[in-house]
Amino acid sequence: MATPSRIVPTPASAHGGDSAAPLRLAIAGLGTVGAGTIRLLQDHRDHIAARCGRPIEIAAVCARDRTRDRGCDLSGISWFDDPVTMAREATADVVVEVIGGTNGPARDTVEVALAAGRSVVTANKALLALHGLDLARAAEQAGVHLAYEAAVAAGIPIIKALREGLAANRVRRVYGILNGTCNYILTTMQETGRGFEDVLSEAQRLGYAEADPSFDVDGVDAAHKLAILTSVAFGRPVDFAAVSIEGLRRVDAMDIAFADELGYRIKLLGVAEETEHGVLQRVHPCLVPKGGPIASVDGVYNAVVLEGDHAGRAVLEGRGAGAGPTASAVVADIMDLAAGRGAPTFGVPVDRLRQGPSAPIETHVGACYVRLMVVDRPGVFAEIAAALRDAQVSMESILQRGHDPGETVPVVMTLHATVEAAATRALAHIGRIDAVVEPPCLIRIEEV
Amino acid sequence: MATPSRIVPTPASAHGGDSAAPLRLAIAGLGTVGAGTIRLLQDHRDHIAARCGRPIEIAAVCARDRTRDRGCDLSGISWFDDPVTMAREATADVVVEVIGGTNGPARDTVEVALAAGRSVVTANKALLALHGLDLARAAEQAGVHLAYEAAVAAGIPIIKALREGLAANRVRRVYGILNGTCNYILTTMQETGRGFEDVLSEAQRLGYAEADPSFDVDGVDAAHKLAILTSVAFGRPVDFAAVSIEGLRRVDAMDIAFADELGYRIKLLGVAEETEHGVLQRVHPCLVPKGGPIASVDGVYNAVVLEGDHAGRAVLEGRGAGAGPTASAVVADIMDLAAGRGAPTFGVPVDRLRQGPSAPIETHVGACYVRLMVVDRPGVFAEIAAALRDAQVSMESILQRGHDPGETVPVVMTLHATVEAAATRALAHIGRIDAVVEPPCLIRIEEV
Repeated sequence: MATPSRIVPTPASAHGGDSAAPLRLAIAGLGTVGAGTIRLLQDHRDHIAARCGRPIEIAAVCARDRTRDRGCDLSGISWFDDPVTMAREATADVVVEVIGGTNGPARDTVEVALAAGRSVVTANKALLALHGLDLARAAEQAGVHLAYEAAVAAGIPIIKALREGLAANRVRRVYGILNGTCNYILTTMQETGRGFEDVLSEAQRLGYAEADPSFDVDGVDAAHKLAILTSVAFGRPVDFAAVSIEGLRRVDAMDIAFADELGYRIKLLGVAEETEHGVLQRVHPCLVPKGGPIASVDGVYNAVVLEGDHAGRAVLEGRGAGAGPTASAVVADIMDLAAGRGAPTFGVPVDRLRQGPSAPIETHVGACYVRLMVVDRPGVFAEIAAALRDAQVSMESILQRGHDPGETVPVVMTLHATVEAAATRALAHIGRIDAVVEPPCLIRIEEV
Repeated sequence: MATPSRIVPTPASAHGGDSAAPLRLAIAGLGTVGAGTIRLLQDHRDHIAARCGRPIEIAAVCARDRTRDRGCDLSGISWFDDPVTMAREATADVVVEVIGGTNGPARDTVEVALAAGRSVVTANKALLALHGLDLARAAEQAGVHLAYEAAVAAGIPIIKALREGLAANRVRRVYGILNGTCNYILTTMQETGRGFEDVLSEAQRLGYAEADPSFDVDGVDAAHKLAILTSVAFGRPVDFAAVSIEGLRRVDAMDIAFADELGYRIKLLGVAEETEHGVLQRVHPCLVPKGGPIASVDGVYNAVVLEGDHAGRAVLEGRGAGAGPTASAVVADIMDLAAGRGAPTFGVPVDRLRQGPSAPIETHVGACYVRLMVVDRPGVFAEIAAALRDAQVSMESILQRGHDPGETVPVVMTLHATVEAAATRALAHIGRIDAVVEPPCLIRIEEV
């Protein structure tokens, strides 16, 4: 009889003896996510210890204000005023960074923690999108882990699904609704017929949008998350600069109504796909068919679709933000570390990430919706048609609701799949037609 | 500066040096799944080695017929005629069981492999549902792992999501479409208006249903999967005998049409939920609202919904069967083992599984749809209403399409949420009314 070799040295914890030594945490940041994480760890202490095979102990915390009531018990926990000092000096195995921000204390805390040989769990998508490669390298050099499930679509274990659950697949495309604020605004515009500014103000009053909403509504937050997903899905260095980004502000209530009439919903999507020109990453509003898996994802929900070459299409939908879902993801990462489950930061070691070309948005091929504001007079359609013909762009349909000679009316076209550069050229010509009184509004159509 | 303790002994593989020793497999069964697994391992050899940090080597295979062409390269691989001998003697770290079947060679192979100190990867839901607890105990005693992602909703990494990604949550409810054959039949009935037997025959011709379809259409396959999900979600010993099972055969084309009119689709669901009487596990046809996350899951797709106390609702949808999705799940398990990522079989060690009460289906509380075949004559509604009153069951609506005195016509009622036992009593009375010429057809309504 052959003796099998042990697969790996199995830690005592792999079969769950929670008599094992506790995993000690230092938590930097006690805002919504930090306090939510502590509450979850305290409320489900036994459940968590049983599931990961050892107790989790909060050894140290750090925040600016010591006196605020955060709805969690901080007694017996060391308090640090400075997160970087904590990352360096606390008696902790893992540093949890939930401060936020791209540079400054968040980045310093993570760098110092990794350099000190501590694994890091973070919810910081901006940090990962901008400095992920350097941080991954630092984690590898220190022989520790950098985990960030909470950074993308909090309540959906999407990083784990890509990095482990569907790891055998080559991914052809990954896309989804990655920003709950934008989705809430679009859903409300759809349901009420109200305009963008109006709904945004309401979302701000309700706390669904920030006082400065640009990060969300201009697509930056979704682009951070897309850059991370792209890296894990395609095994490439994270490259935020390569993401083409367009936000929501140009979407008019009228566009939502026309899309509805054409059989579509408008969603802000992040899409990453392998093309003949390289990997194309783009964030922009899209028309998606009403029957597909994305159109019915409403309100603050996020959804991510993966297309694997063996698994086929998988769709994961859940809450993208909030204390509960984010804490759930942070604690899942902590539990993985406690149980000895790890993976390279972006799925493969840094030196195995493939530095292939990034495709520019001009090479994108797809159908699109175009709305023009046009003075209603004879001959305008002919001019538009000529501009399309000259750019070799093929129209699928054109629609003018209402007829009001001499007044400005919307004209909506759908264009057959075309190279973006050609559509842009055609629209530049059309924009110069006298009767076209506003810059054309183009929204891409994704048949997903 | 405090020195952090190492979290766990990190295997060389955790950061992906694929110079590490290969993980050696012995694969029992070379049917669709076995051959698909070998093809995937061979096609994506480098990709897989980079992602899990070491090469995967197929050391041995076993099947009945040596001569058949399976579309994969078996040269240089040891051949065994008997899987149990292979499980005992092959030079392998992991045994992959894709023979199928509850007893006989599949069970023997898994037991012998575990006893020999080899981890096991299996796609066998029946085996896990019926003998999972014993096998989990055997794996623990041997200090090895038993992995089975492919056993439930193949293309969806649902076991990993429950056991790791959402492990910090207490799950309140888990439910879903767990059998692709049933969903294909229901979708086709919905789309074409055709009857069950007719669509089933077609599905058999197309290879979507087995020659003996009872395992699928009577709900047994879905119940196996539900029993496994329940164990992982609630941390309980797997208990197939506690699942209340009803299949598809009683669903008539008429019911699908009436459901549509009432705003619902009919789906075969598996539902497990915490109730005041214990955990209730049930598989049966359901009316689900058209707008919800389940209604639009069509054809051979599966979907699973988890309700966690912190993450909220998460929905995972994907292909539930087929060579590609199943091989994707089998190889993901293999990659986890290669990378040293493991978890207790059902999420917690066997002695930590909580043996709480199972609720019987009679305690289920819910709304329902009832179709009666009734002779159209005055006074029948009064008799039906009296029977409901006597059982203290409250009707929400009643509907008779068409009026044809003296002939048999369908009458459809929806009942407000009621205890199942009361509804059953009321329907027994109604069934005894002279004018009611067939046993009443009850289909539960799930507002999901």
